[in-house]
Amino acid sequence: MQTLEIITLSGGLGALLTAALAAKSVLRRPKGDRKMIEISEAIKTGASTFLRRQYSSIGLFVVCAAVLLLLAFGWQATVAYICGSLSSMLAGYMGMRIAVEANCRTAQGALKGLQEALQIAFRSGLVMGMLVAGLAVLGVLGFKSWLIDPEKLLPFSFGASTVAIFGRVGGGLYTKTADVGADLVGKVEVGIPEDDPRNPAVIADNVGDNVGDVAGMGADLFESFVAQMIATMIVASVAGLASGYVLLPLAIAGIGTLCSIVSALTIRPRSKNPSYILNFASILSMVLTAVFVAFLSYVLFSSEVIKITVPVVLGLISGATVGLASDYFTNYLHNPARHVARSALTGSATNILSGYAVGLFSCILPIIVIAGAVVLAYSINGLYGICLAGMGMLSVTAMVVSADAYGPVADNAGGIIEQTGHGVKREVTDALDAVGNTTKAISKGFAIGSAALTAIALFVSYCQLVELDRLDLLHPTVVAGAFVGAAVIALFSALVVMGVSRNAFRMVEEVRRQFREIPGLREGKAKPDYGRCVDIATRGALKELVLPALVIILSPFLVGVSLGKEAVGGMLMGSITLGLVFALQMANSGAVWDNAKKYIELGNLGGKGTPAHQSAVVGDTVGDPLKDAAGPSLNIAIKLMSIVALLMALAGIV
Amino acid sequence: MQTLEIITLSGGLGALLTAALAAKSVLRRPKGDRKMIEISEAIKTGASTFLRRQYSSIGLFVVCAAVLLLLAFGWQATVAYICGSLSSMLAGYMGMRIAVEANCRTAQGALKGLQEALQIAFRSGLVMGMLVAGLAVLGVLGFKSWLIDPEKLLPFSFGASTVAIFGRVGGGLYTKTADVGADLVGKVEVGIPEDDPRNPAVIADNVGDNVGDVAGMGADLFESFVAQMIATMIVASVAGLASGYVLLPLAIAGIGTLCSIVSALTIRPRSKNPSYILNFASILSMVLTAVFVAFLSYVLFSSEVIKITVPVVLGLISGATVGLASDYFTNYLHNPARHVARSALTGSATNILSGYAVGLFSCILPIIVIAGAVVLAYSINGLYGICLAGMGMLSVTAMVVSADAYGPVADNAGGIIEQTGHGVKREVTDALDAVGNTTKAISKGFAIGSAALTAIALFVSYCQLVELDRLDLLHPTVVAGAFVGAAVIALFSALVVMGVSRNAFRMVEEVRRQFREIPGLREGKAKPDYGRCVDIATRGALKELVLPALVIILSPFLVGVSLGKEAVGGMLMGSITLGLVFALQMANSGAVWDNAKKYIELGNLGGKGTPAHQSAVVGDTVGDPLKDAAGPSLNIAIKLMSIVALLMALAGIV
Repeated sequence: MQTLEIITLSGGLGALLTAALAAKSVLRRPKGDRKMIEISEAIKTGASTFLRRQYSSIGLFVVCAAVLLLLAFGWQATVAYICGSLSSMLAGYMGMRIAVEANCRTAQGALKGLQEALQIAFRSGLVMGMLVAGLAVLGVLGFKSWLIDPEKLLPFSFGASTVAIFGRVGGGLYTKTADVGADLVGKVEVGIPEDDPRNPAVIADNVGDNVGDVAGMGADLFESFVAQMIATMIVASVAGLASGYVLLPLAIAGIGTLCSIVSALTIRPRSKNPSYILNFASILSMVLTAVFVAFLSYVLFSSEVIKITVPVVLGLISGATVGLASDYFTNYLHNPARHVARSALTGSATNILSGYAVGLFSCILPIIVIAGAVVLAYSINGLYGICLAGMGMLSVTAMVVSADAYGPVADNAGGIIEQTGHGVKREVTDALDAVGNTTKAISKGFAIGSAALTAIALFVSYCQLVELDRLDLLHPTVVAGAFVGAAVIALFSALVVMGVSRNAFRMVEEVRRQFREIPGLREGKAKPDYGRCVDIATRGALKELVLPALVIILSPFLVGVSLGKEAVGGMLMGSITLGLVFALQMANSGAVWDNAKKYIELGNLGGKGTPAHQSAVVGDTVGDPLKDAAGPSLNIAIKLMSIVALLMALAGIV
Repeated sequence: MQTLEIITLSGGLGALLTAALAAKSVLRRPKGDRKMIEISEAIKTGASTFLRRQYSSIGLFVVCAAVLLLLAFGWQATVAYICGSLSSMLAGYMGMRIAVEANCRTAQGALKGLQEALQIAFRSGLVMGMLVAGLAVLGVLGFKSWLIDPEKLLPFSFGASTVAIFGRVGGGLYTKTADVGADLVGKVEVGIPEDDPRNPAVIADNVGDNVGDVAGMGADLFESFVAQMIATMIVASVAGLASGYVLLPLAIAGIGTLCSIVSALTIRPRSKNPSYILNFASILSMVLTAVFVAFLSYVLFSSEVIKITVPVVLGLISGATVGLASDYFTNYLHNPARHVARSALTGSATNILSGYAVGLFSCILPIIVIAGAVVLAYSINGLYGICLAGMGMLSVTAMVVSADAYGPVADNAGGIIEQTGHGVKREVTDALDAVGNTTKAISKGFAIGSAALTAIALFVSYCQLVELDRLDLLHPTVVAGAFVGAAVIALFSALVVMGVSRNAFRMVEEVRRQFREIPGLREGKAKPDYGRCVDIATRGALKELVLPALVIILSPFLVGVSLGKEAVGGMLMGSITLGLVFALQMANSGAVWDNAKKYIELGNLGGKGTPAHQSAVVGDTVGDPLKDAAGPSLNIAIKLMSIVALLMALAGIV
C-alpha cells in the first residue's frame, strides 16, 4: 500500500513547503518605521527570553525522561522521545519567530489598508499551522517506517506531550501573569491605558499573546494530532487489521493537510468581513477532506468506503459543531454574550453568575455531539471507527492552527499601532481585532473537542494494550478510579488557578517597584525595565507549573500501582468526562465575560467608564486565568494522563 | 429474625417520642414580648404561605404521578408512593412549625443568657431531626412488612424524592430569590441595614432560612435515608442473601437513630463553645452506632461480624470526614477562608478566583475518601458491602439533621433580636450565629456525601434489577451515557442558577414598587406588604423549578429508550461523578466566600465598609445561588435520576 505512504509524505512535505513560502512572503514585507521596529524588537527579545528559558527547562526534563526511557525501553524509544519533543519545539520556535516578525509588518501594512494587513497576518499564521501539521505527519510517518510497531511510537507522542505541558500550561501561566500584572498596577493603580509603553509589564503582556495562543495552541494540537495518529494505528494493529488500515490514519492526516493547503490558498482578504473568509476556508478544507477520504477509500478499500468515510465525516462535523457552538455562546453578535453584558447592569455578581451559567450551557451541545459521534462511529466500525472519527476531526489541524495563530499577530499589530500613535483607520484595527476573536473561540473549542477525542482514542488503545476485554463499572476499583480521575482534574485546575494568582502577585510587586524606583517613568521620561518583567513572569510560570504537572504524571502511576489496571482505565474516563466539562465551561465562561466587556466598550449599555463596564471588567478578570490558563491546560492534562497510562502499560507496570 | 424488626421499631418510635417531648419543651417556654411575637408571627405566616402553596403544587404532581404509578404498577405502588410523599411532607411541615415557634422563644431566652437560648434552639432542631429519622424508619419498616419484596418499596422512595425536589430545589430557588431581592434593593439601593423591618422582602428572607435549611435539608436527608435502606434491601434480596441480611439495613438505621437520641441527650449547653458540644454529640452518636452494630452482628451473624461492621464504620468515617473537610475549607477559623478574605484586598476578581480554587481543593479529600470506602467495603463484603457503607453513613441522620435544623432557628432569633433592638449581650447573638455556621457546613458536606453513596447504592440496585452483570466502559453507549449524564448535570445547574437570577429580578421589581408606591415606607411610618413578596418568591420558585425537574426526570427516560439500559447505567455514573464535584465545589466555594465576608465584618483586614469588604460582598452574592440553590439541588438530582431509572427498570421500559 505505498499509495498511502505517498499521500502522507506529500501532505507533510507540502505543508513544510507552504510554511517556507508563507514565511518568505511575510519577511519580504517592509518592517515599518523606527518606532514600530523598536516595539517589535522588544516583543521579540521578550519572546526569545521566554522561549530560551522555557526550552532549557524542557531540555532538563527531556534529559531526565530520556534516561528513564532508555532504561525502560531501550535506545529507540529514547530517540523517538527526543525527536517528538524536538519537532514540537521546532514548530513552536519557528512559528513564534515568524509571528514576532509579522506584527510590525502587519502594523505597517495596516497603513496601506485592511487587505494588506490581513494578508500578512494570515500568512504568518499559516507558517505555524503548516509547521505543526507537516512536522507531525512526517515525524509519525518516519518513525512508523523505522520502528514498524505502532506502540513503539508512543515515546514520540510523549515527547510532544512534554512540550505541550510546558507550552500550554506554562504558557498559560505566563500569559495570565503578565496580563493580570500589567492591568492591576497599570490600569487600576497608576491609571495609564492598556498597552501603554510606560507600563513595565506591557511587553511581557504582548509576548504573552504569542506564548499562549501561538506556541501553546500549536504544541497542544501537535500533541493531539500525533497522539491521535498513533492511537489509531495501535488500535488497528492490536485488532489485527491489515496493514492498509494501520497506515490509513496517516493517509487521512496527509489528505487533511493537503486540503488545508488548498483551502488556505483561497484566502484573499477582499471582503470587509474577514472572519467570513476564514470560516469559509475552514469549512472548505473539511468538505474537501471528506470528499478525498471517500475517494481514497473507494479506490483502495472499495467495500469499506462507508465504514471509513462516515466516521471521518462524523469527526469533521463534531469539530465544526464544537467550534461553532463556542462561537455562538461567546460572540457578542449573539444573544448569550449580550445577556451577560446586560446582567452587568446590576453589578459584578450578576455578571459573573450569568457568565458562569452560559459556560455551563455551552457544554451541552458539544458533549452530546461528541457522545453521538462516538456511538455512531462505533456502530459503523467498532473501536477503530471511534479512532477514525478523531482522525477526521484532527485531519484539518493545519487549517485550524493557521486560522488561530493569525489572531495574536493581528492583536500585537493593533497594540503596536496604538503605541506608535499612527493614523491608521479605526475600522482597520477594529476589523483586525474582531477576526482574531472569532477564530480564537472556534479554535479553542476545536482544541478541546479534539483533545477529548484523542484522549478517548488513547483510552481505547490503553485498554487494548493491557488486554482489558472489558472495563466494568460494577467493579468498584473502576468506579473509584473514575472518582479519583475527577478529583485529579479538580486538583489540577485549582493548582493552575492558584498558580496564576501567586505569580501575578510577584509581577504586581515588580511593576510597583519600577514605578517607585525608576525616576521619570510615570511621566514617560525614562524607559521601564521590560526584561525583568518578562523574566519574572517566565520563571514564575515554570515554577508554578511543577506541581500541576507532577499531579498529572504521577496520579496514573499511583492509581495503577495501588488499585490496578482497571482503576487506571476508570481514572482515564473520569478525567476525560470532568475535563471536557471543565475545559468547555472555563473557556466559554471566560470568553463570554471578555466579549460582554468588549460589547460594552463598543458603546452599548452606557459604554466605557460606567458602573456596568466596571462590573464587566471584574467578570473579564475572573475569566482570564480560567479561559487562558486552566481551561486550555486541561486539554493537555487529559491527554498526558492517557499517555502516561500507555507508557506504564508498555513498561509492564500495570 | 424478629430482633431486627424490634430494634428498627424501637428506633422509629423512640425518635417520634423524642420529637414530641422536644416539641413540648420548646412550646412551654415564654414567647417573648409583643414586638418579638409580631415578627415571629409574620415569619410564621410567610412560612405557612410558602408551605401551603408548595404543598398544593406537590399535591398536584403527586396526583398525576400516582395515576401513572397506578396504571404501571397497581394500587399498592400508588399507596406506597403517596405515603412516601406524605411522610416527608409531614416531617417538613412539623419541623417548620416548631422552628417558627422556636425563634421568638430563643430570642426571649437569649435575654436570660446563652445557655437558655441554645437549649431552646437545639430542642427545636431535635424535632426536625427525630421526625425525619423516625418517619423514614417506620415508613420503610411498615411497607416492608406489608409488601415483603424490597423493590416494591421503590414508589415509597419516589414519593420522598418528589417532596425533596420541591423542597430542596424549589426551596433553594425560593430562599435565594428572597435573599438577593432583599439585599439588592434594601442594602444597595435604599441603603437600609440587613433584616430591617422596612424592607418588604425581609420576612420572605427570614422565611427562606427555614424553607431552605429546615424543610429542604430535611426532605433531602429523608430521601437519602429511605432510598439507602431500600437500595440495600434490594441488593441483598436480588443477591439471594438470607432474610436477616435484607432486614439488617433497617436495624442499622434503628440503632443509629437510638444512638442519636442518646447522644442528643448529652447536650447540655454549658460551655462557651457550643459547636464543640454539637460536634461531640455527633461523634458520640457515630461511635455508639459502630459499637452497637458490631455487638448486634456478633450476636446475630456471629461469623460475619467483620464483614458487617467494617463497611458500616467506613461509612461513618466517610461521613465525618466529608463534613469536617467542608468545615476546614470554609470556616474562617482556618487558613482557606482567611486566604480568600485576604485576596479580597486586591478586588472582587481575586476574591472570586481564590474562593473558586478553594472550592475545587475542597472536593479532593471527600471524593478520595468516598472512593476508598467503596473499594474497601466491596473488597470486604461485595456490592452489599458498598450499600452497608452508605447505611452506616446515614444511620446517624437523626443527629445530623437535628444539629443542622438548629442553625436557622438561631439565625432567625438573631434577626428578631436585631429588629426588636433588645439589650441582649453581643456575645450571645454572636455565639448563636457562629454555631449555626459550623453545623451548616458540616451537615451540607454530610448531605452531599450521603447523596453520593445513596446514588451509588441505587445505581448498584439498578444494575441488578435490569440484570446487567457488567457495565462495560469499552462499550460506547456506556461512555456516551456517562457523557450525557455529565451534560445533564451541567444543564441542570445552569437552569437553577439562571432561575434564581430571573426570579430575583421579579422580586427586585416588587420591592422597588413598594418603596415607590407605599407612602411613608422609607421613613418607617407605614408597613410594607410582606405577604406579596413571600407570594412572588414562592410562585416564582415553583415556576423556575419546572424545567430543571423535567430535565432530571425525562433524561434517563430518553437515554434509556434511545440507547438502552447500559447507557442509563453509564449516565447514572456520569451524573454521580460530575454531580459530586459540582455539589462540593458550589457548596464550599459559596460558604468560603460567605465566611470570608463575615471574617472581614468581624473587623479584620479593615472591617466593614472598606473596599475589601465590598469585594467580599460580591463574592458572597456570587456564592449565594451556588451554595444554597444549585449545589444542594444536585443532591436531589443525582438521587432522582437513579430512582427514575429504577422505576423504568421495574416497569420494564429498559
